[in-house]
Amino acid sequence: MTFTRRLQTAQRRSESLLCIGLDTDLAKIPPHLRRSRSAFVDFNRRIIDATHDLVCAYKLNLAFYEVLGERSWHALRHTLAAIPPEVITIGDAKRGDIGNSAALYARVLLEDLRFTATTVSPYMGDDAVAPFIARRERGAFILALTSNPGARAFQYLPVRRRPLYEHVVAKAVSWNALHNCGLVVGATHPRELRRIRSMAPGMPILIPGVGAQGGDLESSVRYGCDRHGELAVINVGRSVLYASDGKDFASRARAETLALRDAIRRTRDRML
Amino acid sequence: MTFTRRLQTAQRRSESLLCIGLDTDLAKIPPHLRRSRSAFVDFNRRIIDATHDLVCAYKLNLAFYEVLGERSWHALRHTLAAIPPEVITIGDAKRGDIGNSAALYARVLLEDLRFTATTVSPYMGDDAVAPFIARRERGAFILALTSNPGARAFQYLPVRRRPLYEHVVAKAVSWNALHNCGLVVGATHPRELRRIRSMAPGMPILIPGVGAQGGDLESSVRYGCDRHGELAVINVGRSVLYASDGKDFASRARAETLALRDAIRRTRDRML
Repeated sequence: MTFTRRLQTAQRRSESLLCIGLDTDLAKIPPHLRRSRSAFVDFNRRIIDATHDLVCAYKLNLAFYEVLGERSWHALRHTLAAIPPEVITIGDAKRGDIGNSAALYARVLLEDLRFTATTVSPYMGDDAVAPFIARRERGAFILALTSNPGARAFQYLPVRRRPLYEHVVAKAVSWNALHNCGLVVGATHPRELRRIRSMAPGMPILIPGVGAQGGDLESSVRYGCDRHGELAVINVGRSVLYASDGKDFASRARAETLALRDAIRRTRDRML
Repeated sequence: MTFTRRLQTAQRRSESLLCIGLDTDLAKIPPHLRRSRSAFVDFNRRIIDATHDLVCAYKLNLAFYEVLGERSWHALRHTLAAIPPEVITIGDAKRGDIGNSAALYARVLLEDLRFTATTVSPYMGDDAVAPFIARRERGAFILALTSNPGARAFQYLPVRRRPLYEHVVAKAVSWNALHNCGLVVGATHPRELRRIRSMAPGMPILIPGVGAQGGDLESSVRYGCDRHGELAVINVGRSVLYASDGKDFASRARAETLALRDAIRRTRDRML
């Protein structure tokens, strides 16, 4: 089964376009958990247990794990092991390197850690992306238009009357022969998201930046979905993870996830 | 002392523009070493002991370490500990992420592992680069024009009559207020290297791709150096690491390093 089809299946089963970003920060988790040596994994496990039937995917930004040093592999493996196999896992690593190094990064993320998909930086071109899309059942989301202020530095530069990110989108479309390529488009750019969706009608789009970064949920759904109301992957992080810092943090995370999922469904149902 | 000044000092002390890429592959190291559990670090240590007075820097591509899984941190820490403090260490990680994630990556590379410098992907712009150049004594080499075939995909796209990579160079020049910003330019692009050096006369340029990737040593020195014959950092990997797979591998690595250093000096002396 292709990655795109796996994502679609996960979205139908959960009736959800939501992805939770497990970007766990030890300084922000509930104080009663913090004392334990396994606090990081315990927290992730509780969040996953409370939310996995309401999401299509979990995204792990590798930076939040690497900062744990020697314990990073333990935290990655145990977090991933807690996620049911039918839920998509995205290794948000944004790697981009020459062919032989890219092949090693792909091996770490897709074979050793067994993420379903990764995020990949496009700047170094074809051979930097190829190892991440070599297997049809594993996917790569190519950074097209990112949610951060720095996106303005290069991504909008005009190339033959079109912004650079549109050239990245066109290239990603050409890389999608195995139906396992997606795009990253920040929720902070609704107008551009609409245009990108029209350029890549059948590709998954990972949409970070809703909430803390100021992106709007409704326009992300409206412009990010394909014509069947699918294949937009709406990432949320802090609003779910830190819904409460009390002993009720997991149930509050579930309530927040449910509210977001249903808000997404209402928007989607209105547009179909 | 600024990073640029530290690099210059390391180059003068060693009378060398050479950087060895410690991209160690267990499958390629001498068979007599391979049996040991500590083979990876033993090999690096022997290479470092045999070459450290002949180089200005060592570059560690993180992909070659991450692929070791749980043992990656041990390999990184012990390799870095074997490098004398006056030699520059470059964490070739090519990270690029939004501000808060970039800050975590910078913490891992510059504070926890204590690399002198890193490589950074420019695609996500200012806030993705900022944490890597926040301290003047630590540097970042920004990917401008890379040595791989995929460089053609985006880096040459015409933006206002100039290729995209020149816009990256111009931006990197603007990021160099603390004299700690450099560029990555592949040895496979000598003509472009000359132009980039003219745009950034005082910035370090890391030049990979000599040897196995087909880049030419002489033009890398000729066009990569500043007007004092410095600040080009010529990276070599396989030709030194795997100069021999016998018990003489370290002395052969030294001989190869010495030959490369002296070839670089001759070219440099001719141009000054």
